[in-house]
Amino acid sequence: MASLAQVLHGHGGNILDADQHTDVGAGQFFQRIRVDLAELTSDRTSFEGAIAEVAERFHMEWHITWPGDKKRVAIFVSRYDHCLWDLLLRHRAGEFDCEIVAVMSNHPDLEPISTQFGVGHHVFPITKDTKSDQERRERELLDGLGVDLIVLARYMQVLSGEFVAAYPNRIINIHHSFLPAFMGGKPYHQAFDRGVKLIGATAHYATTDLDEGPIIEQAVVRTSHRDSVKDLLRKGRDVERMVLAKAVRNHLEDRVIACANKTVVFE
Amino acid sequence: MASLAQVLHGHGGNILDADQHTDVGAGQFFQRIRVDLAELTSDRTSFEGAIAEVAERFHMEWHITWPGDKKRVAIFVSRYDHCLWDLLLRHRAGEFDCEIVAVMSNHPDLEPISTQFGVGHHVFPITKDTKSDQERRERELLDGLGVDLIVLARYMQVLSGEFVAAYPNRIINIHHSFLPAFMGGKPYHQAFDRGVKLIGATAHYATTDLDEGPIIEQAVVRTSHRDSVKDLLRKGRDVERMVLAKAVRNHLEDRVIACANKTVVFE
Amino acid sequence: MASLAQVLHGHGGNILDADQHTDVGAGQFFQRIRVDLAELTSDRTSFEGAIAEVAERFHMEWHITWPGDKKRVAIFVSRYDHCLWDLLLRHRAGEFDCEIVAVMSNHPDLEPISTQFGVGHHVFPITKDTKSDQERRERELLDGLGVDLIVLARYMQVLSGEFVAAYPNRIINIHHSFLPAFMGGKPYHQAFDRGVKLIGATAHYATTDLDEGPIIEQAVVRTSHRDSVKDLLRKGRDVERMVLAKAVRNHLEDRVIACANKTVVFE
Amino acid sequence: MASLAQVLHGHGGNILDADQHTDVGAGQFFQRIRVDLAELTSDRTSFEGAIAEVAERFHMEWHITWPGDKKRVAIFVSRYDHCLWDLLLRHRAGEFDCEIVAVMSNHPDLEPISTQFGVGHHVFPITKDTKSDQERRERELLDGLGVDLIVLARYMQVLSGEFVAAYPNRIINIHHSFLPAFMGGKPYHQAFDRGVKLIGATAHYATTDLDEGPIIEQAVVRTSHRDSVKDLLRKGRDVERMVLAKAVRNHLEDRVIACANKTVVFE
Repeated sequence: MASLAQVLHGHGGNILDADQHTDVGAGQFFQRIRVDLAELTSDRTSFEGAIAEVAERFHMEWHITWPGDKKRVAIFVSRYDHCLWDLLLRHRAGEFDCEIVAVMSNHPDLEPISTQFGVGHHVFPITKDTKSDQERRERELLDGLGVDLIVLARYMQVLSGEFVAAYPNRIINIHHSFLPAFMGGKPYHQAFDRGVKLIGATAHYATTDLDEGPIIEQAVVRTSHRDSVKDLLRKGRDVERMVLAKAVRNHLEDRVIACANKTVVFE
Repeated sequence: MASLAQVLHGHGGNILDADQHTDVGAGQFFQRIRVDLAELTSDRTSFEGAIAEVAERFHMEWHITWPGDKKRVAIFVSRYDHCLWDLLLRHRAGEFDCEIVAVMSNHPDLEPISTQFGVGHHVFPITKDTKSDQERRERELLDGLGVDLIVLARYMQVLSGEFVAAYPNRIINIHHSFLPAFMGGKPYHQAFDRGVKLIGATAHYATTDLDEGPIIEQAVVRTSHRDSVKDLLRKGRDVERMVLAKAVRNHLEDRVIACANKTVVFE
Repeated sequence: MASLAQVLHGHGGNILDADQHTDVGAGQFFQRIRVDLAELTSDRTSFEGAIAEVAERFHMEWHITWPGDKKRVAIFVSRYDHCLWDLLLRHRAGEFDCEIVAVMSNHPDLEPISTQFGVGHHVFPITKDTKSDQERRERELLDGLGVDLIVLARYMQVLSGEFVAAYPNRIINIHHSFLPAFMGGKPYHQAFDRGVKLIGATAHYATTDLDEGPIIEQAVVRTSHRDSVKDLLRKGRDVERMVLAKAVRNHLEDRVIACANKTVVFE
Repeated sequence: MASLAQVLHGHGGNILDADQHTDVGAGQFFQRIRVDLAELTSDRTSFEGAIAEVAERFHMEWHITWPGDKKRVAIFVSRYDHCLWDLLLRHRAGEFDCEIVAVMSNHPDLEPISTQFGVGHHVFPITKDTKSDQERRERELLDGLGVDLIVLARYMQVLSGEFVAAYPNRIINIHHSFLPAFMGGKPYHQAFDRGVKLIGATAHYATTDLDEGPIIEQAVVRTSHRDSVKDLLRKGRDVERMVLAKAVRNHLEDRVIACANKTVVFE
């Protein structure tokens, strides 16, 4: 921490906010630093070189986002539109510092929404037989677009292990339950049948183990005996939206560090 | 509803609050009525008789609590004291309209607390061999004391199916997780290992299926990567206390109706 | 309650949910009943007549909404669009059982949004000199459209006392603070200056006393020293949306009864 | 930050957690560092000397708490006992790393509680005429006991400006409302009369302006039309307890920095 702060200072960087955490059990140290570069005295190359030198010395993994480096985001959807609307409207309102470069779907239904926001809507219908081919084509498109983050905004297809493995900690999924409760399909129906008094949503990085990836954000909302499954679906839409948006924003601001099966979230 | 309201009115009862619910799926109608009896024109026997007549006509189960009818409560504990303190202090503060007639435990540790509040502390050490005998003795004591409600305030023994079946919807347990997540033992350790961003507690009626009984109340509290298991335990104590106290109060005020594996809670 | 339930039953109405409340201090009794009319044995006129007869006998005010009676809603906006989007999208998603018949604004900016949802966007620029005339024209339009409910979705003009008085308990305003904290303008700036750890929003019926009308719904969200005014504005948009939507839905479902300066909300 | 980290490192201190914040508006930089001293290579004097040297160079105010440095706490109470019980039980449960050296009160009522926990209960009856003298005697006792923190746990007397000024940012008060709503007396009655849908509590440092000090922590709880003033008092006790305990714990762990009329809370 001292050496890195010294480097930042030495190059004219002014630390605005910083956050550190030691995971004693894992023997890991995490750090996020936000630097004011107005008085930077060196260029990017030498600045990054100096950081790299410190990082190598202390065996640190590191990543830097420069002011103009907007992450490039693709949103995967199926037929539910509430998360897509929410993400696109928040982006337009300036809540997400990114470029949304594609909406991808196994259905054409939501194309008018994407179009309205000037985002290409790419349809890849998936069947058991075509899945492998279609995923290959999807990856070509994603890589061609230089996508940094994939957001599964209620995408109702299970991605293959191969696909998921290609984007480690770069796919955020919203699961419509308070994981690990109600894994798998139809969690609101499961919640209704169990008679829980709260329902929730979970945003997590997708891993090859479905619903088991590192959790980024969770929230819940109260329910009661008066709530039908339809009411749970309605309440759930709100909490899904909020949880997904918060996870995406934190990821975009480099506040989330995944390590093993957990996340550090520097809020 | 009309007939019952008519009977209450006809005997001089003045309805203060009422709440009704129809569970369309189960084909069940639920109702809770709070009546001002200041101008009751008949005696208890004829009042109850009239209600019973209506209830029989419409195949309703019913229950009445008269103003002086304080429920008699036994609290089961082991070594954790936070829920016991909380229940006894709330009782003294007038939050629970009941009599606490016994604390029962498999350990003597918390006796000074019970004694301080003037409640007998009965110790029944449990081993695999003695469990059956001890439960029989516990039931004798409970029945001798006329206990209406058993509160498992972090009681660390599993009650036998026979014991539980003897007090249907009259045993409230606090489970230290947001069920159905993290069933079984050491839920805070499970939560820590899974890296969840919220932990919770669940108050439910005990049934022969452990952790599967009708849920009365749940709540959660935020956690972060900074929280150790010890922090989760501390945060958990607060939410356990709050959830258990709310479930107990609602039960004592006849606000909870269990039906199949769910509850209607008229708050 | 008995007489009314008797009347409903006598005409073949099947009570699905009901909720009653006595405000002892005010000496008022409130009741909401939801009735299944599938087996109604009489026509509307005689059904309403029978209710009216009971109501008169017990000096009750009453209101009935028949299944097809969709309330007609006008939304007032200025330049902030988040509440408008939210209301229109929820309406399209089937969350509001109403017809949105007009968007009215002192600015043309949000017209594309209204148009997209097929709702007329009526612009009434307001200056100190024209306010009285413009409000008269607005009222003509509202009354011509048969508007039942006016939603002030971050409408930045103060309505005159005369206007407000014309729609008693039929104008819902969203105030961007947890009232009565931070009344008046720029509440997020006030909150920032005061250093509060939570910010909130309040939906209330508009009355001639600004920010003093009966409160329908409130919620809060956590803030910290890291939040700038801009962050508060962003967090505030979410809580404003949620609070306004919940108040509107409860009003549309006839769950809200205003009495003096308070509301009964039968959820 | 670099220089300080260098000093800590140079003396063998291992940074476990750190948190920094820049208040751009105020032009202030705040930092909290938790250091593992297991491998400290120098003694306290030289370690502190080195920190002092850096601090002076950068015009920083600083404070260090060594592992054994338990803060000494006095709790002020009147007749409400819920916060006192809560603080003493949490202390016994190991939630507060401090010594509670005195309970001080204008009434003898709660003496049995203090005594039970082995804490001296000092009674200073206050009248308008004796206030000045009694506060002087209280301050003598506090200073004699070496008190670091005064907790006003529902202490119903207003401390004089002179008294408050003697312990800057060392007196934590719990106000039973969500400030700045409902300042002054009887906030639950005010909340009831206004018909709010949430009530709250606020822990803040006491300043000479009553209810205007820097806010440390706030929380709220939902209420409804069914809640009487008595219900609000009951719900309020829970939220008061939770908010006060969290503020006290954060203060004891040196997580709170007051600056002007706000706090930075490094959680």
